[in-house]
Amino acid sequence: MTFTVKSEIYTFGGRLLKLSHQSLITNSFMDVNVYLPSQYFNSPESLVKIPVLIYLSGLTCTPQNASEKAGLFGYADKYGLALVFPDTSPKNLPIAGSKDSWDFGESAGFYLDATKEPWSKYFQMHSYILKEIPLLAKQYPKLDFTKKSIMGHSMGGLGALLFFLRNNSESHTEFQSVSCFAPICAPMSVPWGKKAFGGYLADESEWAQYDPTQLIKKYQGINTSDILIHQGTKDGFYSGDINQLQPEKLVEAVKGTRYDGKLNMNLVEGYDHSYYFIASFAGEHVLHHAKALGLV
Amino acid sequence: MTFTVKSEIYTFGGRLLKLSHQSLITNSFMDVNVYLPSQYFNSPESLVKIPVLIYLSGLTCTPQNASEKAGLFGYADKYGLALVFPDTSPKNLPIAGSKDSWDFGESAGFYLDATKEPWSKYFQMHSYILKEIPLLAKQYPKLDFTKKSIMGHSMGGLGALLFFLRNNSESHTEFQSVSCFAPICAPMSVPWGKKAFGGYLADESEWAQYDPTQLIKKYQGINTSDILIHQGTKDGFYSGDINQLQPEKLVEAVKGTRYDGKLNMNLVEGYDHSYYFIASFAGEHVLHHAKALGLV
Repeated sequence: MTFTVKSEIYTFGGRLLKLSHQSLITNSFMDVNVYLPSQYFNSPESLVKIPVLIYLSGLTCTPQNASEKAGLFGYADKYGLALVFPDTSPKNLPIAGSKDSWDFGESAGFYLDATKEPWSKYFQMHSYILKEIPLLAKQYPKLDFTKKSIMGHSMGGLGALLFFLRNNSESHTEFQSVSCFAPICAPMSVPWGKKAFGGYLADESEWAQYDPTQLIKKYQGINTSDILIHQGTKDGFYSGDINQLQPEKLVEAVKGTRYDGKLNMNLVEGYDHSYYFIASFAGEHVLHHAKALGLV
Repeated sequence: MTFTVKSEIYTFGGRLLKLSHQSLITNSFMDVNVYLPSQYFNSPESLVKIPVLIYLSGLTCTPQNASEKAGLFGYADKYGLALVFPDTSPKNLPIAGSKDSWDFGESAGFYLDATKEPWSKYFQMHSYILKEIPLLAKQYPKLDFTKKSIMGHSMGGLGALLFFLRNNSESHTEFQSVSCFAPICAPMSVPWGKKAFGGYLADESEWAQYDPTQLIKKYQGINTSDILIHQGTKDGFYSGDINQLQPEKLVEAVKGTRYDGKLNMNLVEGYDHSYYFIASFAGEHVLHHAKALGLV
C-alpha cells in the first residue's frame, strides 16, 4: 500500500500531506489528508510516537473542506497529535447514478459496510477506515495507530460514534475517545439515515448496528470516556422542518447505560451547521482527545 | 448608507455579518464582511468601544475566502477587536473585459484610486476603504474607527502598506499598526504592479504614490510602530521564475529611513502563498495589532 503524495503544505509548524491511494477494500482510488505536527519532524526518531486523531467529514465533503476550514491544525500541533482526514466515500465509480444524489452514493458513504449490490463492492467505508487507514503507519512510521481517537461532523459525527461504539469492547479499546459536531444521532429515525440504510444495506435487520442510539444501549467497552458533542441551536438540519440529527434521542438512549451521565451534550445558542461552527469549538474538541491520548 | 445584512453567523463567541451596500465612491454594489467579537454584544452599551482591524484580501478573492480560511476570529474575540473584510474591487461592472483577467479588473483593485477611464469611475478602492468603510459605525455604533489597524495578504498586503504609509502623517495617525502576509512590496518593479498601474493610472508619474518602497522613504508619520511581515520561502510568487513580491526591495528601501530597524520581516522556511500559510501566523498578527490598539 503506497500513499502517493499529491502535495505537502507547511502549516502551523507541521505539514499537511494530501495523499491518494488505491484501496483494496473500497476497490477505488481514495484521497486522504494527513496533518503531521511539528513533533513528528523535530523529535528523535527512536523516541517519538505520535497519536492519531481521525476526523470524519459530512455529506458532500472531501478531505479538503475540513483541512481548509475546521481550524484544527494549531491545536494538533500544540498537543502533538496527527490528524487524518479520510474521504467521505469512494469516488468516480462505475455505478449508474452514483453521483446523482447529494445524500446518497458518492460523498455519502455513511461510514458503513454496504451489503446491497452494486454498492457493496465499493462502499466498505467502515472496514476501510478501520483496517486500511492505519497502513499509513508503514509510510509514516512515527504514527501510532494503537493510540487513536475519532471525531466528526454531521454524517461524520455519526461515523465517529459508530467507530467508537462498534469497535471498543470489554477486552479491547480501539479508540480512546470520541467527539462530534452536530452528529446524525439516530439515523434509523430520520430521512438521511433511512435513505442510506435502505440503499446500502440488504436487510432492515442490519440497520441497528449503524445506529448510535441502538449501539449505546449494548455498549460493553471498558473505555467509557466522556462523549463530547456540540450542537448548534440554529443548525438548519436540527431546527428546520425535519430534525435530521435528533440529539435528544441519544440523550434519551444513554439513560440506564454505562454512558448515563457521561454524554457531554452541548446545545450552543445561535450556532449553525457550518465550518464556522466547527472551528469555534475545534480547540475544545482537540483538547478532549489530547487528554484521552495522554498528551496533556 | 445602509449595509444590508445578507447573513449573520455565530462563530467564536461573536458574529460574522455578511453585508452588502451601494457605494457612492465606487458606484457599485460592494460586499463587506464584519466580525463582531463577543465583547461587542456582552458589554454595557455606554462603556464599550471596539477597535477595528481591517483585513485586505489578495487577487481573485472576495470577503469570503479570508472569513472561511484565515483563522482570525478566535484571536479577534480573545482580544476584543472587530474585523472588517472589504471586497477586492467593485464587481459586475459595465466595462467590457472587466472580468477577463485574474490580475487586473474585477477582484484586482490594488487598493488605489484609478485615474484612467473607464476604470476611474469605479476603481476608487483607496478612497472607498478610507472614507466609506468607516460608515459601518453608523449602523454598528460600538465600532471605533478612530482606533484602527490594517493587515492584508499579497495584493492586500500591498494595500495594507499603502493605507498605513499614505495616511499617517506628522500631525495625524489614521492607522495604529500594519502587518502583511506575502505582500507585493515593490509593485513598480514587477509584472503584477506594472499591469495594474499602467491600466488604472493615467500617468506613470502617479505610480510612486502606490509603491511602498517609494512611500517609506518619504514617510513622516509620528507613528513608527513595527511593520510585521511574514513571507514563505516556498511561495510560488516569491520563489518562482518571477518574484512578484520583492520583500528584499522593501528591506533595502527602509535603510536610512525612520523605519530602519523597525521592519519585522520574517522569511519562514517552507511556507507557501496559501491560506494555510496565513492561518499559521494569524495569531501573531492579531496580537501585533491588539498591542498597538491598547488591548493587551
